[in-house]
Amino acid sequence: MSHASPARMDHLLTLDGLPRERIEALLDRAQHFADGADDRGALAGTAVCTLFFEPSTRTRLSFQLAAQRLGADVLNFDVSTSSARKGETARDTLKTIEAMGVRGFIVRHQDDGAVAALANAAAPGTALVNAGDGRSAHPTQGLLDMLTLRQAKGADFSSLKVLIVGDVMHSRVARSDLHALRALGTGEIRVCGPRMLLPDDGTLAGCVVTEDFEQALEGVDAVMMLRLQRERMEEGLVASLDDYHRDFGLTVGRLRHAAPDAVVMHPGPINRGVEITDEVADGPRSLVLAQVRNGVAIRMAVLEQLLRA
Amino acid sequence: MSHASPARMDHLLTLDGLPRERIEALLDRAQHFADGADDRGALAGTAVCTLFFEPSTRTRLSFQLAAQRLGADVLNFDVSTSSARKGETARDTLKTIEAMGVRGFIVRHQDDGAVAALANAAAPGTALVNAGDGRSAHPTQGLLDMLTLRQAKGADFSSLKVLIVGDVMHSRVARSDLHALRALGTGEIRVCGPRMLLPDDGTLAGCVVTEDFEQALEGVDAVMMLRLQRERMEEGLVASLDDYHRDFGLTVGRLRHAAPDAVVMHPGPINRGVEITDEVADGPRSLVLAQVRNGVAIRMAVLEQLLRA
Amino acid sequence: MSHASPARMDHLLTLDGLPRERIEALLDRAQHFADGADDRGALAGTAVCTLFFEPSTRTRLSFQLAAQRLGADVLNFDVSTSSARKGETARDTLKTIEAMGVRGFIVRHQDDGAVAALANAAAPGTALVNAGDGRSAHPTQGLLDMLTLRQAKGADFSSLKVLIVGDVMHSRVARSDLHALRALGTGEIRVCGPRMLLPDDGTLAGCVVTEDFEQALEGVDAVMMLRLQRERMEEGLVASLDDYHRDFGLTVGRLRHAAPDAVVMHPGPINRGVEITDEVADGPRSLVLAQVRNGVAIRMAVLEQLLRA
Repeated sequence: MSHASPARMDHLLTLDGLPRERIEALLDRAQHFADGADDRGALAGTAVCTLFFEPSTRTRLSFQLAAQRLGADVLNFDVSTSSARKGETARDTLKTIEAMGVRGFIVRHQDDGAVAALANAAAPGTALVNAGDGRSAHPTQGLLDMLTLRQAKGADFSSLKVLIVGDVMHSRVARSDLHALRALGTGEIRVCGPRMLLPDDGTLAGCVVTEDFEQALEGVDAVMMLRLQRERMEEGLVASLDDYHRDFGLTVGRLRHAAPDAVVMHPGPINRGVEITDEVADGPRSLVLAQVRNGVAIRMAVLEQLLRA
Repeated sequence: MSHASPARMDHLLTLDGLPRERIEALLDRAQHFADGADDRGALAGTAVCTLFFEPSTRTRLSFQLAAQRLGADVLNFDVSTSSARKGETARDTLKTIEAMGVRGFIVRHQDDGAVAALANAAAPGTALVNAGDGRSAHPTQGLLDMLTLRQAKGADFSSLKVLIVGDVMHSRVARSDLHALRALGTGEIRVCGPRMLLPDDGTLAGCVVTEDFEQALEGVDAVMMLRLQRERMEEGLVASLDDYHRDFGLTVGRLRHAAPDAVVMHPGPINRGVEITDEVADGPRSLVLAQVRNGVAIRMAVLEQLLRA
Repeated sequence: MSHASPARMDHLLTLDGLPRERIEALLDRAQHFADGADDRGALAGTAVCTLFFEPSTRTRLSFQLAAQRLGADVLNFDVSTSSARKGETARDTLKTIEAMGVRGFIVRHQDDGAVAALANAAAPGTALVNAGDGRSAHPTQGLLDMLTLRQAKGADFSSLKVLIVGDVMHSRVARSDLHALRALGTGEIRVCGPRMLLPDDGTLAGCVVTEDFEQALEGVDAVMMLRLQRERMEEGLVASLDDYHRDFGLTVGRLRHAAPDAVVMHPGPINRGVEITDEVADGPRSLVLAQVRNGVAIRMAVLEQLLRA
């Protein structure tokens, strides 16, 4: 694994197996940036490229802002819309841009494992950050969720009950959250969603799993809602948005089942009225915008860690 | 209104109601930038995002250059072509990017009032510039046109006769020009165009309105041509490009009706041979490129005013 | 011609007619940058715009990195996908962005001579770099190929045998390579490809031309493979990719005909298994990634030369 070395990470591909101390060190550093610190000298003269085989403007912008605040030069390559690839392999695209002198790559890809495969092809000194691959991992999202939780609930996760709700099956966010929650020793992890959207491949090992949303909410300290992709309807995995909202939509009424000071999170973009109502999304318990804010800080910490000379 | 406070503008949404002193102060400051001054320290460390729900490369580039010359970090989000929006509301898109630490937004939107609605949703300290909404306003275009006029004709507009020609009905440029011309006390404002393309909703209050182009040109000091959108043909509001050119195309011959030192303006991009001939567009009376040049200076002045700490 | 003046180049449109001393001076300066030098002060405050009427992400990125390493502000205008052009002429697009204060343009266009026509329209002090026009010229590719050859084989080209293979007819890369190889006094230039893809208009004057690939390879010091555009199949100029590979694909076996230390080049992106096998493309004789690396250095030298105050 890329982070097996205690001395240094070469890439950030997944949180799976990342030791607690590494995660906490990244959160500490990110908190420093979240408190407003910039460090325009950290990556001055270093070129970083977003390489998105699957489009995502908000994630790209977050990484771009993080890199700029560290003084890096940022290039954007939206491979998904580029006519320039001309049949070139992803590996050749990476090696070409690497040869141009780019040292950091922020890669999103629709296929599981594609970013790790590219990392294997990278030269020493080149660092890749997985900005989401297939349904496997989205490690900076997992980290920013942990930072947000820590700000709200303190650094000791052992007494926390955290609930993840929705389409865990197809969610790289859920997988990275699960990796991080376990590494930080979360007291109880619950998972709730339609049976068809809950994986039975070991992803949920150690979690309390249920299809009953209100029961799942009982006494939790944090509710992490997942985005419902509209493709699930077409695939027949979800009957309708209305049905989904009836069974798994977070409302103010339902939120009363959670602990009195429970917080609500969502990776965005939100389907308002589907997985969450406006009242909850914009309410006092919502940490949605704090998550976005922390995203930049986490990405600064990751890029600094990987690329600082 | 956003500029009701005498102390500071929060946003620039329209020129409607903006006091003459504010407009003149912006023109003065823009002239300073037009004379070649840069100020790379003014917005150093400040992130600015172009957020275009309707595409416009030339306006985006102009704002981007202005922000760069003030030292800002510039992000581009072309919402119109982005697959990343995924059904997110415009408000959520704004609030998300704002949460990432972006302080200035340059927003273009196809709907009247959409930019003002977004400004209402913005947090204190966030500034929006309307880069064109629907047919309502395009305030930086209005300002750059005034700067261009002032450079050519001097700061006293009270003795000027200015003619606006074309599709005023659908033109946010015309509306912002009218707001600014009135605020600066222009001596006489004339408007000319096909009856179907002249609004009768009060937009033209106080203007001399006619369908006879040559009569309208008589003795004017400045002719501000509007772009004809090809959609007007499809909507049946204009019979054909040839007909339009015959009745409202500015030629060297027609220009002789204007004052001997009359200047010609056009917001671009020009439909050559439709609203204006090559001879006029590229001739000695044309200020078209001066308008473009002044656009960067005006946008520097506006961004500095709104975002300087 | 733009480089007729011994004192200074205004534009870089073609290598045709560029004196040997100019080419060698650019190669010397590029080698300095290839050795790792940056010069962030060289173009600080200078705005450069990529203006691509035909898309090419890799060329755009290479120029963008070069400009950034010289401290320039870089704007990208992908005209081919822009909805903003709205029927504007290429000349008006150039003049508009020039009026905004952009001093350097990196232009790609599908039509032969289009970049030179735009250069004629540019104001004094504005510099254009041809980043590829039609089948005519791609001068920075020619220069980077020469730098790569020189690094591998030394500065004296008079004893070199260099072979160009493939679709020379449609290749601006081949034309710029031929211009540069001749200017540098290359000992022997051979050209090989399907008869239908070899021009008979004087392009190959002085070259040894053959359709027999193995014979052509005999004893050469460098093999410059060209990319095969898939359009050639549709046009009936090439029967199939398999046929092309059988006759003109570079394999390890075929490469044995060349000199023992022969090097292999390709402008990319590579059609693996068509014009070149994986073993050759990724093998010890391949300079493909060195070409990419040198591309940034060459573009730095060119931009510095054209734009430095």
